[in-house]
Amino acid sequence: MNINGAAITGQVRGQPITGTIESGNIEATVRFGSQMTINLRGHVRGRRIKGTATIVEQKLTLDWSARQEPQRMSAPRIHIFEPSRFHHFFRSDVAPVLRVRPGDTVETWSLDACGSDSRGVRRTIGGNPLTGPFFIEGAVPGDTLEIRLTRLKLNRDTAISSSVMTNKAIDPSYIEQRGRLADKDIAWRLDRENGFAFLDKPTKLLKSCRVKLAPMLGCVGVAPSDGMKLGSVHLGEFGGNLDYRDLGEGVTVYLPVFVPGAFLFVGDGHAAQGDGELLSNGLETSMAITFRVGLKRDAGPASPRLENSSHFMASGIGGSLEEALRRATTNLSRWLEKIYGFDPIEVSCVLGTSMTYDIAEIVNPSFHVVAKVSKTDLAAMTGDPVKSHGPGDRAVPPRFPANS
Amino acid sequence: MNINGAAITGQVRGQPITGTIESGNIEATVRFGSQMTINLRGHVRGRRIKGTATIVEQKLTLDWSARQEPQRMSAPRIHIFEPSRFHHFFRSDVAPVLRVRPGDTVETWSLDACGSDSRGVRRTIGGNPLTGPFFIEGAVPGDTLEIRLTRLKLNRDTAISSSVMTNKAIDPSYIEQRGRLADKDIAWRLDRENGFAFLDKPTKLLKSCRVKLAPMLGCVGVAPSDGMKLGSVHLGEFGGNLDYRDLGEGVTVYLPVFVPGAFLFVGDGHAAQGDGELLSNGLETSMAITFRVGLKRDAGPASPRLENSSHFMASGIGGSLEEALRRATTNLSRWLEKIYGFDPIEVSCVLGTSMTYDIAEIVNPSFHVVAKVSKTDLAAMTGDPVKSHGPGDRAVPPRFPANS
Amino acid sequence: MNINGAAITGQVRGQPITGTIESGNIEATVRFGSQMTINLRGHVRGRRIKGTATIVEQKLTLDWSARQEPQRMSAPRIHIFEPSRFHHFFRSDVAPVLRVRPGDTVETWSLDACGSDSRGVRRTIGGNPLTGPFFIEGAVPGDTLEIRLTRLKLNRDTAISSSVMTNKAIDPSYIEQRGRLADKDIAWRLDRENGFAFLDKPTKLLKSCRVKLAPMLGCVGVAPSDGMKLGSVHLGEFGGNLDYRDLGEGVTVYLPVFVPGAFLFVGDGHAAQGDGELLSNGLETSMAITFRVGLKRDAGPASPRLENSSHFMASGIGGSLEEALRRATTNLSRWLEKIYGFDPIEVSCVLGTSMTYDIAEIVNPSFHVVAKVSKTDLAAMTGDPVKSHGPGDRAVPPRFPANS
Amino acid sequence: MNINGAAITGQVRGQPITGTIESGNIEATVRFGSQMTINLRGHVRGRRIKGTATIVEQKLTLDWSARQEPQRMSAPRIHIFEPSRFHHFFRSDVAPVLRVRPGDTVETWSLDACGSDSRGVRRTIGGNPLTGPFFIEGAVPGDTLEIRLTRLKLNRDTAISSSVMTNKAIDPSYIEQRGRLADKDIAWRLDRENGFAFLDKPTKLLKSCRVKLAPMLGCVGVAPSDGMKLGSVHLGEFGGNLDYRDLGEGVTVYLPVFVPGAFLFVGDGHAAQGDGELLSNGLETSMAITFRVGLKRDAGPASPRLENSSHFMASGIGGSLEEALRRATTNLSRWLEKIYGFDPIEVSCVLGTSMTYDIAEIVNPSFHVVAKVSKTDLAAMTGDPVKSHGPGDRAVPPRFPANS
Repeated sequence: MNINGAAITGQVRGQPITGTIESGNIEATVRFGSQMTINLRGHVRGRRIKGTATIVEQKLTLDWSARQEPQRMSAPRIHIFEPSRFHHFFRSDVAPVLRVRPGDTVETWSLDACGSDSRGVRRTIGGNPLTGPFFIEGAVPGDTLEIRLTRLKLNRDTAISSSVMTNKAIDPSYIEQRGRLADKDIAWRLDRENGFAFLDKPTKLLKSCRVKLAPMLGCVGVAPSDGMKLGSVHLGEFGGNLDYRDLGEGVTVYLPVFVPGAFLFVGDGHAAQGDGELLSNGLETSMAITFRVGLKRDAGPASPRLENSSHFMASGIGGSLEEALRRATTNLSRWLEKIYGFDPIEVSCVLGTSMTYDIAEIVNPSFHVVAKVSKTDLAAMTGDPVKSHGPGDRAVPPRFPANS
Repeated sequence: MNINGAAITGQVRGQPITGTIESGNIEATVRFGSQMTINLRGHVRGRRIKGTATIVEQKLTLDWSARQEPQRMSAPRIHIFEPSRFHHFFRSDVAPVLRVRPGDTVETWSLDACGSDSRGVRRTIGGNPLTGPFFIEGAVPGDTLEIRLTRLKLNRDTAISSSVMTNKAIDPSYIEQRGRLADKDIAWRLDRENGFAFLDKPTKLLKSCRVKLAPMLGCVGVAPSDGMKLGSVHLGEFGGNLDYRDLGEGVTVYLPVFVPGAFLFVGDGHAAQGDGELLSNGLETSMAITFRVGLKRDAGPASPRLENSSHFMASGIGGSLEEALRRATTNLSRWLEKIYGFDPIEVSCVLGTSMTYDIAEIVNPSFHVVAKVSKTDLAAMTGDPVKSHGPGDRAVPPRFPANS
Repeated sequence: MNINGAAITGQVRGQPITGTIESGNIEATVRFGSQMTINLRGHVRGRRIKGTATIVEQKLTLDWSARQEPQRMSAPRIHIFEPSRFHHFFRSDVAPVLRVRPGDTVETWSLDACGSDSRGVRRTIGGNPLTGPFFIEGAVPGDTLEIRLTRLKLNRDTAISSSVMTNKAIDPSYIEQRGRLADKDIAWRLDRENGFAFLDKPTKLLKSCRVKLAPMLGCVGVAPSDGMKLGSVHLGEFGGNLDYRDLGEGVTVYLPVFVPGAFLFVGDGHAAQGDGELLSNGLETSMAITFRVGLKRDAGPASPRLENSSHFMASGIGGSLEEALRRATTNLSRWLEKIYGFDPIEVSCVLGTSMTYDIAEIVNPSFHVVAKVSKTDLAAMTGDPVKSHGPGDRAVPPRFPANS
Repeated sequence: MNINGAAITGQVRGQPITGTIESGNIEATVRFGSQMTINLRGHVRGRRIKGTATIVEQKLTLDWSARQEPQRMSAPRIHIFEPSRFHHFFRSDVAPVLRVRPGDTVETWSLDACGSDSRGVRRTIGGNPLTGPFFIEGAVPGDTLEIRLTRLKLNRDTAISSSVMTNKAIDPSYIEQRGRLADKDIAWRLDRENGFAFLDKPTKLLKSCRVKLAPMLGCVGVAPSDGMKLGSVHLGEFGGNLDYRDLGEGVTVYLPVFVPGAFLFVGDGHAAQGDGELLSNGLETSMAITFRVGLKRDAGPASPRLENSSHFMASGIGGSLEEALRRATTNLSRWLEKIYGFDPIEVSCVLGTSMTYDIAEIVNPSFHVVAKVSKTDLAAMTGDPVKSHGPGDRAVPPRFPANS
């Protein structure tokens, strides 16, 4: 919100706020459609505001506090961050390891999914240990966080994967025929110079097995909505264990912010991964990571969005592939409507001729489908040069007691 | 585990443990198949054991502590518990409100889903506020908790529901035709004496609308696995927001224990609810609840099971209806195999002729399907009188870094 | 349509028709919304009309013929029909075995699913051989056919079932563990007098296995839309292999008519069946069948509906359980809106408190879910006595080149 | 089968046949595992064999005839086929339009999905009119048909598409918000020289809308199994309305043969199409088609497979996206196992690192997912040059009375 002398105007989570400020005393009202009105009263002390918030319809009065956002004075900084403790949850109830301002860059690294670092030393238990949380200064619920992966480099010469394709990818009759297989770890050697992975102990038929390296991050996520604490195999509107092969160097990830400071975590580097993450993992390895952080005030996407030099990519995450696909298409539609001003017929024309889907992964607690469209195709359809992007728009659903 | 003089034998999470104890010093080994061996070393001090646990394969050494289970001396107790604070998460990182021994009974009550009590007084924000957590003495991961709902009584004369059927239950073409409808709350009057609910402001066509009361609890759950903290609309193998119309008085719910003490929560009473919980809620109301707690040592179900005088009921919870159905059928199959000793052909014969499915709810973050079979039908098939039950058996899957 | 002297008014498939008739020459126009206009020209000769139909928008002219519907003169008849040939498809390109007028009753019988009759004699190959097709006089596309099963009686003392539960009902991990099982036929003895089925060769654990008899028809269907010919394991809006345990004596099945004469088939009797038809079949046996036929002119359901003395039941058939469920709820909603005049809020209130789902079968090429509501509950909600029913209403979707 | 003097050996649908031939009299037995034995008796007259086939277990005797396969004498022919009648079903109960020998090439053309030809003249009603059926000499059930699209050329300058994205691709909340939209046809101009399509009446925002041409066939299919007759919007193991954007020039399609002669149909050309066929169609247009036919004797794929110079592609077709995905992965796994001799671990390694999925279409009666792997990646993994392919192997499931 903007505090302009005596009058307050602006938005709180995309809803209009109006009110007055006098001698440091604030009175203001936020209306969420016809369903909820919140009266705010408070007092400014320095850069902090304290007071009460009354939800009128529910006759509930709560404590309320806010902090005036500092003006950025200083130039963007580069933080070199050496992690020493690791987390296995997306959460906001632990101390941040670093406070980062929008515009700043962080150079850090992540363990592999089993907990080992770039020298192969075990640093914690397995299961996607995460680096972070990074506290993003000024981020509040309703904002959109931008994480630009400016650099993603393999930092050792080995990786590990499973050896058996998930039962979720194959027919019951094939499971019956195949029987139960021991899922032994497979060791890979990484030839970082030439960009290939090799089986450490190849079978006869895969004697010279060579897989192209395509480093990516499995996990990029913020603290989930509503104060939840979710294990680092989970994914959702907060991002998380996205396991998408195009989440590599040069990509910008847009995530909604659910708690003040966002609480950003990264980890689970893969040297390479196919569609669907069929082995339940990729070529798991440690990773050197550099990312730059940005922040947008307008209400952002309801689900992760990604962008690189060639594509707009919108995530759909759901309990079934069809739910994930519906969410992905809707996420991309709303994004293009925001960027280009398309109406539903125009967005149908663009997606119907030019959209493709990727099935990112099928093995985590939720399915992940990505709907994407190339910027070249968009330029050919709109006659515009490649459009400058934005995180887009979302209709924030009211959060009332539902599903009870 | 049983500590018998010098030799230790027994089970830890269903796995054999062997070792020795001498002068209070313990050395023991637990083997989880061929995949994991844990060496335990420790020292007994009073009823506490402290020491280290080394995961051999991973060369990881962790702190380890345990507590000798007290012998039950006293008779079962009845606890009258008046809640004053309420929770909106299934979690284990808060202080329990009460410590309960297996065999004990708890008399308590729950708010309605919007946070109001039996006098209609708002006590907290909405969204399924929960009563608890109850710490179950002696419960450890791998155990099965039994919650027998000995009494479930409506304690006020009003209920609230939504008014619009979920979009998840209807065709897209019907959504298009229906358009967007404002979902206003509907008020119900409860005639507890005669067992009916009435619309407070009936429409002309539903002028004498009368719905049979069938009180049930929407939420019965323990703290989830792996230390997660999940909002009280969630459900899973830990139970939670099950929203099943047969979870009423007289039912016993079996839940796996994931943390020491189990951390049991109850809440979200419904005066009545149809299949699927189509309105995203039932007739939401406060409730007087009495339950008795039991505990079984053998590895229990991987998902909730329910039993009453007439039926065995097995939950399946998943991201799609088909996944939920597969889990429900599997859960019931494994249970009957455990109780009756059936082989796969016999269990096929029983389920193929006598099982029915209920679609408990489709509106929460996961789908819930119940597979059930009547005890009368089972008696007619086996020639046995109605079998004494048990929580059943489960193959505990190893918890390694997967899905990374 | 009604031909009233010079002016023609009425409906064709629910669309208005207007025109004139003079000296036996007909000129008329039917409008399907704004999308299609059909000009009809023709000449009446006796009770037949012949001429051309021009689809204006597509500049297509086709031959067109119609037959004036005979006035019913005679009293309803009872046909005793002894089948000698059997069909393995729902189709309209074979000669009907019998012409039946609305109001008439047919007494006939069906083979078991393997092709054997009431004396156990093999009469044709297996795979749901069907009795029929019965040509219903006067039935035209857009009508609703009523089939009332006035009698359904077992006519022999044996039945056959499979022995292994379908892989579609269980978890992949359970399939892995169970391995591949030979699916041998299981023989059952039927004690028709006392109403129980017994295993012919019981296992020790199922030594006195006794299953309650509940005879039903697996297959009731008409020729499918658009001239298709579908194997008798298929089901869809035309009915077909519905495999629903409540499709027994006393039920009325409502089916849309897709071809002149409807071409009704019946077969696939089950002495008993659980939910989901887990064994891929029920207790398969031959059956004595008596049904009465009715016909309604108003556009009927888009999918099968069933009614008996206690319930309204609406089928949803789809490629996934969720699609089937959405179609079932929508089908029941539209039906109740038609019968009672409910608006979407009222129908939400009724279904949200009183509807239940049955999972009829999961093993056929499509899933079948039934949404149902009891007439007693409806009477209690509306204050009316049990409502006289009707096949309901449907919005006939235009059949244009789509999905190409 | 091979008739070698007095002794008969060989295979019938992959099952061993043994017998004798003497003075033109044949006696032979085919065994389908332990489940079915067929005794054949017959007499050779010229190149025809007639007689009886007795299914021993079922005591059923049927007429049986066969035709000795002609030795190929002549060189492969090129047939120029001008279609005059068109079909709207995949079926085998109509006269073939042309008899084609394996090795022969057919030059023909198809109407657009609305029934218009290369000059825009309406030739039949819409709904994917098909060119064919082509009778493939010598094709019998169990064979694999190869259709190599040697040439696929646009033959006019216009195309038509729908204008509204399918409700199946988007969230219910987006449907609610979007409301019902009239789905008007959109006209496209095709600039065949430069390879682009343009909107005939562009909106302001899509003023210079240019879509890259990528001609493909929506429909390539044979007569379905079991004598069914399916509308030309259907797809399945017989191929059909596959609507996959990579089914273009240079691809070879492998289809199982279900009836003697296969009865091949082609049609439904698209000038371009995005993933999922979101508009329920592509840029629909007429097409000039040249294909070469091949035939393999060994039991082929259970579902369509495709191959071009760069990829192996395996179709999965099912009622849900997950079923389609499971079938696609399984189809590709079995194919690579056949071509390369991989074991399940090796195929897991290849697919887990190198497979990608395409979501071909989501709007037809079944979902279509394609699992594919590039030949370059396979060469890098196996150390072999690009492998010569084959249609692969399938385990033919027994076709007994099931799903009754």
